[in-house]
Amino acid sequence: MRTQRSFQVRLASRPDGIPNREHWEIGWTDINSPSDGEVLIETAFISIDPAMRGWLREAKSYLPPVAIGEVMRAGGVGTVIASKHPDFREGEQVVGHTGVQTHALVPGGTLRKVNDNVAPLPAFLGPLGIPGLTAYFGMTEVGAVKQGDTVLVSAAAGAVGSIAGQIALNLGARRVVGSAGSDEKCRHIVEDLGFDAAINYKTEALGERISERCPEGLDVYFDNVGGDILDAALAHLRIRARVVLCGAISQYNDLEEVQGPRNYLSLLVRRARMQGFIVSDYAEQYGRAAEEIGGWLEAGTLNYRNTIVRGLETFPETFQRIFTGEKLGKLLIQVV
Amino acid sequence: MRTQRSFQVRLASRPDGIPNREHWEIGWTDINSPSDGEVLIETAFISIDPAMRGWLREAKSYLPPVAIGEVMRAGGVGTVIASKHPDFREGEQVVGHTGVQTHALVPGGTLRKVNDNVAPLPAFLGPLGIPGLTAYFGMTEVGAVKQGDTVLVSAAAGAVGSIAGQIALNLGARRVVGSAGSDEKCRHIVEDLGFDAAINYKTEALGERISERCPEGLDVYFDNVGGDILDAALAHLRIRARVVLCGAISQYNDLEEVQGPRNYLSLLVRRARMQGFIVSDYAEQYGRAAEEIGGWLEAGTLNYRNTIVRGLETFPETFQRIFTGEKLGKLLIQVV
Repeated sequence: MRTQRSFQVRLASRPDGIPNREHWEIGWTDINSPSDGEVLIETAFISIDPAMRGWLREAKSYLPPVAIGEVMRAGGVGTVIASKHPDFREGEQVVGHTGVQTHALVPGGTLRKVNDNVAPLPAFLGPLGIPGLTAYFGMTEVGAVKQGDTVLVSAAAGAVGSIAGQIALNLGARRVVGSAGSDEKCRHIVEDLGFDAAINYKTEALGERISERCPEGLDVYFDNVGGDILDAALAHLRIRARVVLCGAISQYNDLEEVQGPRNYLSLLVRRARMQGFIVSDYAEQYGRAAEEIGGWLEAGTLNYRNTIVRGLETFPETFQRIFTGEKLGKLLIQVV
Repeated sequence: MRTQRSFQVRLASRPDGIPNREHWEIGWTDINSPSDGEVLIETAFISIDPAMRGWLREAKSYLPPVAIGEVMRAGGVGTVIASKHPDFREGEQVVGHTGVQTHALVPGGTLRKVNDNVAPLPAFLGPLGIPGLTAYFGMTEVGAVKQGDTVLVSAAAGAVGSIAGQIALNLGARRVVGSAGSDEKCRHIVEDLGFDAAINYKTEALGERISERCPEGLDVYFDNVGGDILDAALAHLRIRARVVLCGAISQYNDLEEVQGPRNYLSLLVRRARMQGFIVSDYAEQYGRAAEEIGGWLEAGTLNYRNTIVRGLETFPETFQRIFTGEKLGKLLIQVV
């Protein structure tokens, strides 16, 4: 087999704020043939996620930081082109941590088979992938949503928020409201995704709007954003409410100056809880969850959108769209 | 029966910061004889608690605010001197919401009988009363403390904190550390109450000390204080830690400028939860809890201190000691 080359995005230096092109090193590298247990993948779509910002930090977190010079970590879906793992054969489609590159050598044990006869490949990085599973376990296990609940979701037009809100609806929530950063996104979550109402956090007064849209208060607040909307939601909790800490996109670029929730004492008066989670803690239940999500997709009670950008070389600018919000639903790079 | 007079402390105006003498109206008033269902109590000890600060606020909370001109709400223990409730007879000792007054007309249904043959009367306002029950349900139900846990308690020389830490020890915590505001209090919680270590939050660097005293991090943080120590504790959580929001004495006098916990994202990375509670939610289990606490008192594995101030007329200054910390254990006024 001739030497395989891979077009890669590597971390050149650690960013302080929003990463830009100078923090990345992009180009072709020779990669090895698979060793025992490894699989060589030609990637088709790469997932661009808020969590990637955390992996650029030097500090210890739930995963080790991406090292300087290392290929940027990312989820991806693609086709096996060579395999030394007994479970995978050439031509099979797989999803896993491929990194931001055209060709990836990955330990077979970390891959999952997918099939574009079941759903288009991007779905395995969206509702049937980590964002969908994150929404699922955040809403069911941490948020413990139940019939009749009133639910608020922030970043509701995003990959996780859009699914989280629809899962609440599928599970019998009485009222699901989402916040998003443009009128177009607000229209989308109500008209296309079935949310009961939307709040444009850039143009509307958060506290007033939550009072109006959820006059009885919130049973579940699913937070992807942090900052002002977390505080506004805390001020509107019902007794025994659950605040799901899924992310804090408004805070990720300056963790030295995080805005702590000043209304946290609402948790005390309302006997409420605020709880974080990491989706991989539920890895053993992924199969069951994906099956339930798949059922909703099939039934048409769960919808999703992708924003697909073509070409790995766009990664530095495409990644910035996570922070500027210039996207709808799941942000992906189509590799070729 | 001749007209009964009661020496009372009434709310004269709503304080902004720490209440002082001008916010109170103190003097004698005629009170009625008991109507059907009521009991007339001569109070012996009045409980002085941080929660009382919250009742002075106009805002809706878990209890209605004390109205201007109304007798200040407080727990108290005393003796029945007249009763029109079938369950209570003259001479019986009772605990309940008597208010800050020498004689109180109280609906019998809200009273509980006590007996100074079982324990000294102040114990029914301490370990066997609301502070003890608060510590109990906070540590067991909300903190879900279990064998082998590392536990940090703030305001650990106070009425609730001192009991909370000892309950953790009784339930098999591996290590219980308390914070307090003087070397004397620190000595007390280690030498008299059996805590494993103490941190003087006024003179020691909180973060460093927590790292030193709890090198493996915290499974439970029982927070009575808020502010800096809450943030320091959040930075030291273990995976699946529980932060019990019991109070926030450092924040009560200026709720317009609450210090939000900037390290709250530690809840996400550590899959931890922060949860508030109100002890009265567990009222149906008070009997069982008081029995278990009583067992520890008898066995000598739970100790407590009182700071007793004589005379209801001292109330304005005595109440301030909640905020200045000039007390050890439970703060009480001995009525006569």
